[in-house]
Amino acid sequence: MSRIGMYVKFTAKSGQRDNLVNILLEGAASEQPVKECELYIVNISDTEPDAVWVTEVWSHSEAQEASLAKEETKAAIQRAMPLIAGVESIKLTPVGGKGL
Amino acid sequence: MSRIGMYVKFTAKSGQRDNLVNILLEGAASEQPVKECELYIVNISDTEPDAVWVTEVWSHSEAQEASLAKEETKAAIQRAMPLIAGVESIKLTPVGGKGL
Repeated sequence: MSRIGMYVKFTAKSGQRDNLVNILLEGAASEQPVKECELYIVNISDTEPDAVWVTEVWSHSEAQEASLAKEETKAAIQRAMPLIAGVESIKLTPVGGKGL
Repeated sequence: MSRIGMYVKFTAKSGQRDNLVNILLEGAASEQPVKECELYIVNISDTEPDAVWVTEVWSHSEAQEASLAKEETKAAIQRAMPLIAGVESIKLTPVGGKGL
């Protein structure tokens, strides 16, 4: 089992970015006790006003899948869906560095 | 002064990705004692064999500029330049989440 990383870009519907950020921050808070979730950072873009990028690192892919399967996560996704115009992701393998 | 974040995508010249990764990991190691460098994670792409993505978070932009001005950083950039075919970056403002 090795670490996985992901940058997920959410494009919010017009005027909905900050509501989406709040739902994602709640998701991050719910991962605080989950040791396999090493990073879940919510960022806004400096150049695209509707874009939200989430930086994720998980200690293995099964941990990310387990998070997505939680009732709490499913409910948050249901609340977020109407706010989202599009989602893209960049899949990564963290090699090392500072902060992990 | 507020946090800044950045995803930097380096496209290595063919066959040079792992050499580039090693130079970037040395750079990350040199930032270990720098408290203003909160994250400097080196990742390889799961889909683009020549791509290296660096996830950076700094406590303020001046700290990143100070790092780039260090002789050690300048020397590393000189060593890395011949290995690099292209660089792009995505500028972010971290809002919160797990891991900062």
